[in-house]
Amino acid sequence: MGSELLSDLATEIVIPVCAVVGIIFSLVQWFLVSRVKVSHERQATSPNSKKNGYNDYLIEEEEGLNDHNVVAKCAEIQSAISEGATSFLLTEYQYVGIFMVAFAILIFLFLGSVDGFSTKSHACTYNPQKMCKPALATAIFSTVSFVLGAITSVLSGFLGMKIATYANARTTLEARKGVGKAFITAFRSGAVMGFLLAANGLLVLYITINLFKLYYGDDWEGLFESITGYGLGGSSMALFGRVGGGIYTKAADVGADLVGKLERNIPEDDPRNPAVIADNVGDNVGDIAGMGSDLFGSYAESSCAALVVASISSFGIDHDFTAMCYPLLISSVGILVCLITTLFATDFFEIKSVKEIEPALKNQLIISTVLMTVAVAVVSWIALPSSFTIFNFGTQKVVKNWQLFLCVCVGLWAGLIIGFVTEYYTSNTYSPVQDVADSCRTGAATNVIFGLALGYKSVIIPIFAIAISIYVSFSFAAMYGIAVAALGMLSTIATGLAIDAYGPISDNAGGIAEMAGMSHRIRERTDALDAAGNTTAAIGKGFAIGSAALVSLALFGAFVSRAGISTVDVLTPKVFIGLIVGAMLPYWFSAMTMKSVGSAALKMVEEVRRQFNTIPGLMEGLAKPDYATCVKISTDASLKEMIPPGALVMLTPLIVGIFFGVETLSGVLAGALVSGVQIAISASNTGGAWDNAKKYIEAGASEHARTLGPKGSEPHKAAVIGDTIGDPLKDTSGPSLNILIKLMAVESLVFAPFFATHGGLLFKIF
Amino acid sequence: MGSELLSDLATEIVIPVCAVVGIIFSLVQWFLVSRVKVSHERQATSPNSKKNGYNDYLIEEEEGLNDHNVVAKCAEIQSAISEGATSFLLTEYQYVGIFMVAFAILIFLFLGSVDGFSTKSHACTYNPQKMCKPALATAIFSTVSFVLGAITSVLSGFLGMKIATYANARTTLEARKGVGKAFITAFRSGAVMGFLLAANGLLVLYITINLFKLYYGDDWEGLFESITGYGLGGSSMALFGRVGGGIYTKAADVGADLVGKLERNIPEDDPRNPAVIADNVGDNVGDIAGMGSDLFGSYAESSCAALVVASISSFGIDHDFTAMCYPLLISSVGILVCLITTLFATDFFEIKSVKEIEPALKNQLIISTVLMTVAVAVVSWIALPSSFTIFNFGTQKVVKNWQLFLCVCVGLWAGLIIGFVTEYYTSNTYSPVQDVADSCRTGAATNVIFGLALGYKSVIIPIFAIAISIYVSFSFAAMYGIAVAALGMLSTIATGLAIDAYGPISDNAGGIAEMAGMSHRIRERTDALDAAGNTTAAIGKGFAIGSAALVSLALFGAFVSRAGISTVDVLTPKVFIGLIVGAMLPYWFSAMTMKSVGSAALKMVEEVRRQFNTIPGLMEGLAKPDYATCVKISTDASLKEMIPPGALVMLTPLIVGIFFGVETLSGVLAGALVSGVQIAISASNTGGAWDNAKKYIEAGASEHARTLGPKGSEPHKAAVIGDTIGDPLKDTSGPSLNILIKLMAVESLVFAPFFATHGGLLFKIF
Repeated sequence: MGSELLSDLATEIVIPVCAVVGIIFSLVQWFLVSRVKVSHERQATSPNSKKNGYNDYLIEEEEGLNDHNVVAKCAEIQSAISEGATSFLLTEYQYVGIFMVAFAILIFLFLGSVDGFSTKSHACTYNPQKMCKPALATAIFSTVSFVLGAITSVLSGFLGMKIATYANARTTLEARKGVGKAFITAFRSGAVMGFLLAANGLLVLYITINLFKLYYGDDWEGLFESITGYGLGGSSMALFGRVGGGIYTKAADVGADLVGKLERNIPEDDPRNPAVIADNVGDNVGDIAGMGSDLFGSYAESSCAALVVASISSFGIDHDFTAMCYPLLISSVGILVCLITTLFATDFFEIKSVKEIEPALKNQLIISTVLMTVAVAVVSWIALPSSFTIFNFGTQKVVKNWQLFLCVCVGLWAGLIIGFVTEYYTSNTYSPVQDVADSCRTGAATNVIFGLALGYKSVIIPIFAIAISIYVSFSFAAMYGIAVAALGMLSTIATGLAIDAYGPISDNAGGIAEMAGMSHRIRERTDALDAAGNTTAAIGKGFAIGSAALVSLALFGAFVSRAGISTVDVLTPKVFIGLIVGAMLPYWFSAMTMKSVGSAALKMVEEVRRQFNTIPGLMEGLAKPDYATCVKISTDASLKEMIPPGALVMLTPLIVGIFFGVETLSGVLAGALVSGVQIAISASNTGGAWDNAKKYIEAGASEHARTLGPKGSEPHKAAVIGDTIGDPLKDTSGPSLNILIKLMAVESLVFAPFFATHGGLLFKIF
Repeated sequence: MGSELLSDLATEIVIPVCAVVGIIFSLVQWFLVSRVKVSHERQATSPNSKKNGYNDYLIEEEEGLNDHNVVAKCAEIQSAISEGATSFLLTEYQYVGIFMVAFAILIFLFLGSVDGFSTKSHACTYNPQKMCKPALATAIFSTVSFVLGAITSVLSGFLGMKIATYANARTTLEARKGVGKAFITAFRSGAVMGFLLAANGLLVLYITINLFKLYYGDDWEGLFESITGYGLGGSSMALFGRVGGGIYTKAADVGADLVGKLERNIPEDDPRNPAVIADNVGDNVGDIAGMGSDLFGSYAESSCAALVVASISSFGIDHDFTAMCYPLLISSVGILVCLITTLFATDFFEIKSVKEIEPALKNQLIISTVLMTVAVAVVSWIALPSSFTIFNFGTQKVVKNWQLFLCVCVGLWAGLIIGFVTEYYTSNTYSPVQDVADSCRTGAATNVIFGLALGYKSVIIPIFAIAISIYVSFSFAAMYGIAVAALGMLSTIATGLAIDAYGPISDNAGGIAEMAGMSHRIRERTDALDAAGNTTAAIGKGFAIGSAALVSLALFGAFVSRAGISTVDVLTPKVFIGLIVGAMLPYWFSAMTMKSVGSAALKMVEEVRRQFNTIPGLMEGLAKPDYATCVKISTDASLKEMIPPGALVMLTPLIVGIFFGVETLSGVLAGALVSGVQIAISASNTGGAWDNAKKYIEAGASEHARTLGPKGSEPHKAAVIGDTIGDPLKDTSGPSLNILIKLMAVESLVFAPFFATHGGLLFKIF
């Protein structure tokens, strides 16, 4: 066993410094975005505004720069969206706040009861020669870290939403100057969110660990067991954020499209459509706040999974602080790498035409991955001993530092591959989406058949990428290897979030342009940004799902270790029934969320139709629609409907653990994992492909696309139907599934001591 | 250990006698159907033809009974369909014949190479004190039983098709006399197929065992290991039958509907539609021949799985022939039970109105299950010793006869529950389908969202039913328990097939009525039969999937035992990557089959459009369309497109076994099983629900339904889109998936000796 080059003191300094750098960078980006004024002042036209991203089919002059009415109108719409989103999120947080308190009490009671609320120290679980802090302490600190994780998650989502609603109108206004300016504004805003979340998540976790250490001292086993509550808190909030936000946004979107586009033949985001504000609010509460919470959750969980396994490996046993902090160091340098990567998009190069948008975003992925590989090599070299041991289901496995480097890299590169495959299947520059668009010729039915087939097919390579990562990292460093592979995939989270958040911001910007009555050309620019945004959103979901698969496997492994079972044998009835029922859960969950979106959309349709029929002059643009009622329908539906799927996910591990025991629960986790990953990937890619097939027809950028269009043609109508079906798949059920699999795993891990002591009642009775 | 009441001699007599009784009953039913003359003779109107199934909204006189032209036209259409189906199947069998020969050679070479083609006896695998016949003998006999299984499977499908095409026009002609007469004709024809298949499958298996015994003598281990080839042969033919037939029928159906119904506004099965003959041929080659092969495969595999486990349990070790034949005895009495059950539908009661059709079919399920429970109790009592031991992964588990009785019953009743749940979710008399129909109000998009959600939801209870069956039967009698539970579910296969085949026959009858220009009322009667048929088809698929899940688990268990691994631990990288990749396979497979249907349908659409545009007078009914070209498109597409998905299924176990070894293969089997079951159930129920939602709107039998209709209304158009999307889901990808999971398991079992000796090359090299 060697010792590492980085001293513990240096580690203590490097981590918070990187986090602070990230926060400062985020504020700088925010300042740059804020220079675009959404007010009545005259715009300061920069001297080099000639280079403004024209291309052959978007040629136009800078226009409307001096039109104060437009600016005022944008400001008005922006504040309507922002207020709607804020008010929804605050209401949502009241609901989840109640849940949070109730669940915190549950955690305390369940974990406290493990040792009968005794305040006496007990022999450690993994090292019985040593004495560890009482189970009651674990109960208290787990509860505290759960609450901290929950609050950080909620804060992440809320801040993301605030930034996005701050940026949307600014992107619209910049679109008047050209596609390049608009791109930079949207991307910078995404970066604000990305860096703030990544840095904040790291900082809170780091501070929490250090504070808990004051009590735990050298009982690292107990310390990091309590820290897993942080992951649980993050993910449980993310679940409600994703599901509630997802139902909100898609009820509004589907409802608005069904009446507006299909029945009334008015464009998307037309201000006459009563559901239009709800739709734009939805992008911010669903795609932004929900996704922010989600990726924060993944990040928190993979860190916790790595830390808890490390604490019972030689790092923890030898109290090697720097090596112990390896996962946090990876995240820290990740922030620096992403910082440099961002400069490539915003400063080193400049977008000059629509065609450059997608490559620019793709380059972000490539650059960050390449730089990160180097950074991981450095961290692995200086922060790890050359050889150490990792806990592997009861035994200690010897691992070299280069092996751990490979584990992180395999996750990192698997993420890139998943990103590329997702791009291939969802971007309209490649044949799969073009084939789907082409199938619209024969109507909606073939469009749906081709779209579903595309989604199923898009699963193949990502699953092989995940399988290879698992095999490599598992073989090298058991469950710790998988946890750090997940961290590798998430190490570029700031960049991932930036390009992901960019999508809904552009979407909103387009909506604002339409509602403010800006010219058709500006709408075309924002549409081009948005088309790239659909792809990056799908890529973001791909990362989220891929990392969720790895994270939950790592958590699953940690759970199995903590629950004290050494094998999970498929060929025992207890495990097998868990496996098959677990594989069913994603279907049950999807059925709930899709039905919720469908029902809420039906209500929305009725309301929009009612307004068109009863408000005189609405179609002619003479009267204003009643936006508030539509906002209320989405709000009520999402708050009511998020509870059953939420309950399904949160209660399943508890019920299975208590009544059927840890073996069956292991089966459930494995089943939900292997089945959920597939549905999640296929749902999000199918939806993304349908959306972009529609955009492909609308944009008419190629000979082939023009034979399918224009807007309003039969193939276009078929494409709109596909897009509408894809909405709940890609934005509600699909992305919530990765939370399902992670959350059940982390919840099982947190409650493992309880299940191991009191679980399996049913089998005990019979 | 007690001895059983039934002597070996009695067993030797009972089994073939039951099989022969089944065949005779089948011939009697055929004779009764054949009394309906499809020729120019005058119909003999029976004296009690007044009771002819009117109900309040289908009141009409007997009509057209003397119209010789109609009869002649029916005969003409019938022979066109029959010729088309025969010619397709014969072509298909040439292709699969080549495959069969190639795969037979492969089996011989792989299994022969296990012991270097040595002709010397070797120590038995499970009982090393004893000498067993050489591995070369296993190779030869496995090859022979594979070929026998393949031929029996092909024969089952072909005979089924012949019967169905014989019955379709007769059902149409009987529909002139009323719904009751038509029902009996369709149902009797289904029964011909059901009994012929069940009895034939049993008889061939029984004779094969007895012939093999002449060589094997008391080496039952080798004998029953060779017999598993029978299951592999049956299932591999079923795969091509299901996939090829499924692509054929749905390419034609989707193509015909897209142009005919949606573009040209002509009714379904209108003779002016060029794809109409191909569509009707498709029902016979896909739903009938494919399904016949499929259920025969399930039956053969579950028998083989039970026998191979029994051969290494006390039954086999003690050479207790009667107990050994327990699985066959269950199937034998199953034939008698189904015989009595059939009389309830055809003789004891009579259908008088449309409303009675579904209950009559449902009663078939209930009656057969109740009677079978008694029969199983009797068989378990007389054919089993009161106590015996069952092989359980290396140990022998003591089992009582009443425990085995419970194992069979739990499968039997789980089948009934699955049947009921399927009925609830796919019949238009209950709220789920009515909700889907209602969602058509807001267009095709909500219809699809609700339909997908319905399919996902319909998975829940069947999975719990399967899980409980597995837990109970596994706990009582390990893998043998699961195999007999599967047999229990399939013991009423004759009735299941009868009600299943009834559907496509009615569908065809409706087509013939339309094409022969018979009155609208007759079409309404056949439509009512067909709506019930959609539900029974879904129920049949539910049984097929449920039994496939149990069968493949049993086969999987047998494989694991034979491959000599004692645990399949999810927490080893080899197994886990198998699990996640296995769970992906159904998606890959579905992507292929759905894309195939989509592409073939596009070609069909082009051709149908071309004919409408270029053949003058076609729309006016003055010219005849060119049916043959459409038949050719379907034929070519299905023959070409069935190869890749077939290769995926057949090659995966070989590649994984050879390169990654038996642990990874175990993971693949478990993953494909738990994931495939869910997709198969949800796909087939979603499709069935869409089809019946459309029929619900068309029939307009309730106040609610009439607000959605009539044909041609916007909601109806949306429903047609849903129906079209559901076609490949419910008739191509969904039902093929259960073959995927069974076939991979039985293939692994057959090749287990080879994999155990030579497999896992990749891990051996690295």
